[in-house]
Amino acid sequence: MSQPQPVEYAEATAQVRAVFDDIKASRNVPDVNNFWKYLARDPALLERTWESLKAVMAPGALDPLIKEMLYVAVSVTNGCGYCIASHTASARKAGMTEAMFGELMAVVGMANETNRLANGYRVPVDPAFE
Amino acid sequence: MSQPQPVEYAEATAQVRAVFDDIKASRNVPDVNNFWKYLARDPALLERTWESLKAVMAPGALDPLIKEMLYVAVSVTNGCGYCIASHTASARKAGMTEAMFGELMAVVGMANETNRLANGYRVPVDPAFE
Amino acid sequence: MSQPQPVEYAEATAQVRAVFDDIKASRNVPDVNNFWKYLARDPALLERTWESLKAVMAPGALDPLIKEMLYVAVSVTNGCGYCIASHTASARKAGMTEAMFGELMAVVGMANETNRLANGYRVPVDPAFE
Amino acid sequence: MSQPQPVEYAEATAQVRAVFDDIKASRNVPDVNNFWKYLARDPALLERTWESLKAVMAPGALDPLIKEMLYVAVSVTNGCGYCIASHTASARKAGMTEAMFGELMAVVGMANETNRLANGYRVPVDPAFE
Amino acid sequence: MSQPQPVEYAEATAQVRAVFDDIKASRNVPDVNNFWKYLARDPALLERTWESLKAVMAPGALDPLIKEMLYVAVSVTNGCGYCIASHTASARKAGMTEAMFGELMAVVGMANETNRLANGYRVPVDPAFE
Amino acid sequence: MSQPQPVEYAEATAQVRAVFDDIKASRNVPDVNNFWKYLARDPALLERTWESLKAVMAPGALDPLIKEMLYVAVSVTNGCGYCIASHTASARKAGMTEAMFGELMAVVGMANETNRLANGYRVPVDPAFE
Repeated sequence: MSQPQPVEYAEATAQVRAVFDDIKASRNVPDVNNFWKYLARDPALLERTWESLKAVMAPGALDPLIKEMLYVAVSVTNGCGYCIASHTASARKAGMTEAMFGELMAVVGMANETNRLANGYRVPVDPAFE
Repeated sequence: MSQPQPVEYAEATAQVRAVFDDIKASRNVPDVNNFWKYLARDPALLERTWESLKAVMAPGALDPLIKEMLYVAVSVTNGCGYCIASHTASARKAGMTEAMFGELMAVVGMANETNRLANGYRVPVDPAFE
Repeated sequence: MSQPQPVEYAEATAQVRAVFDDIKASRNVPDVNNFWKYLARDPALLERTWESLKAVMAPGALDPLIKEMLYVAVSVTNGCGYCIASHTASARKAGMTEAMFGELMAVVGMANETNRLANGYRVPVDPAFE
Repeated sequence: MSQPQPVEYAEATAQVRAVFDDIKASRNVPDVNNFWKYLARDPALLERTWESLKAVMAPGALDPLIKEMLYVAVSVTNGCGYCIASHTASARKAGMTEAMFGELMAVVGMANETNRLANGYRVPVDPAFE
Repeated sequence: MSQPQPVEYAEATAQVRAVFDDIKASRNVPDVNNFWKYLARDPALLERTWESLKAVMAPGALDPLIKEMLYVAVSVTNGCGYCIASHTASARKAGMTEAMFGELMAVVGMANETNRLANGYRVPVDPAFE
Repeated sequence: MSQPQPVEYAEATAQVRAVFDDIKASRNVPDVNNFWKYLARDPALLERTWESLKAVMAPGALDPLIKEMLYVAVSVTNGCGYCIASHTASARKAGMTEAMFGELMAVVGMANETNRLANGYRVPVDPAFE
């Protein structure tokens, strides 16, 4: 068996349960997503990733909806299927409408296109941008 | 000479000048960026790219500042030096503060990290996300 | 039928069988993986890829376990599902423990994150690194 | 001025100096690399990134040299110029010889090649890998 | 329900139907591919994408077969499963033989390999290429 | 000194000189490009890479111009500066006109855009493509 296996709450250690409990309380959900169940194979990684995510995605100069849409933009660019699915769901929960999703996708598509045009034409950076 | 060369206004055809004029008027700037001068080697590509960009980046369900930050997120993920420089400048012009840039970068970094954790642990999509 | 089809041993030409035989003998396995069966559609590509892989992955200054973990790091970064699955299996066979896999994933995640922080902050290379 | 600017020790806040001091002490170096000086624009990001990096790169199931080589493999795959330069230097400092670098590069090149062959031939995952 | 849903002809608006009709007429097919049915969620994006694609993929200095193979090369490099499947099918329809596909894949694999060797060895651009 | 250094002919071993001589004879050029001088640090890698490249880029079912354009498409997608410069030069030498370069870039840009639209809309593969 080569494929990593998830850790369910019932079989989790106290350290892992503490993280799961914090995720469930922070998000007000009855269970954690698969992502966390798989990371739980490495409790230190689980804990560090959750602590970082909680800090990074908290309201600040940018509100959580914008942060979730940025997450989707990166995940779509990288082609990470799991992340596209989970962060699109989070963005919708945070208030992303169908129209906002459409515009988000249009920007992501356009940026991926012009990134390559800039590469291929070897455009030098304008002095004003430095 | 293998490297593509920019087209300056003085040497541009009427078709290219019309696009340059529209960019300058839309953005209220005295000259277009290098990106457009290089694309001008292919007038059809120049025109199509500008028309699409104008439509995609216009205010809509998402405001221009958010769209510029999404553009930065994609460009940073792809490592496009020109695009990072130009769209960071555009985002600042549209109102991005130092604190917003910091949070944008933190989200982009985190998303690139967890995209790979999801890949490596081969996390299956939760039924709730489908 | 657009999808490439695998070549099974029974239907393979002598050239393809010779490569399959060498893979089976080198790895002491009863059959070759799907990767090789699909590449066999192009016998020259099959042969060249196998010869290169055999040379590159052989013990040298780096032992095979380290090489397999490097392979996983690249495959996870690129999001190649097949390659993640097959090289994780190979790494485990070469001795990768659960703890080693966890640390490998943590490094890969961290590197993908800081690669983007360096891009976004446009950090100039320190003179000492050149 | 659009380009992010580094924070030097003399102008740094106490929070930033504490991180810089810890980096210098941990690595026994007289000054921190540019990467940290730029991240210092966002003290929370600086601190979180350093704490994570310190934990992730510490000796564990994998020794620091292997971890640095994994970092190089990811950075080369992503084409992050700064990261390639800085982590190649770290890997050399940790004991990477010229021969080890050569084999590392050969594996990274090969993996990037076969990742795409697997994509293009749409190779299904062997049941044994799941 | 988080996953985007396709728009079928029967439920489509007049604007969407006009695009679908043009795709069917241009390609002489009885129905449009899933790609267009999903984009139809955002009629403006659908229309803009189709108009651009029609212009870009039309015969010109490069014939459609070459353009489809370039599309496959990009899609394989990015690991976009849908795009690999659909553009491999289009390339075959445009005349790509099994032998041509094999050589296309070999070039794509090789380019992805040497791109990383150039990154890792930090090869400076030869003056003759500038 | 962390940066890899090139190997010039005068200081090269017989094994390296043999490869350099073959490159110069095959391409009818007075000196090899920087890429080969850097790879020469690892003579086995140099030799294997050159032998593969020579086989892959030779005329076959696809002519050398098409192969060079495919190489450019991959390099632009990956953002490899050295490879974009060197293979654009090779493609021009093989007959790529300005108009062909323009269309090549347009296809590459478009493919990078629609790859992300397909990812973000999570478009399922049409049965006809499998």
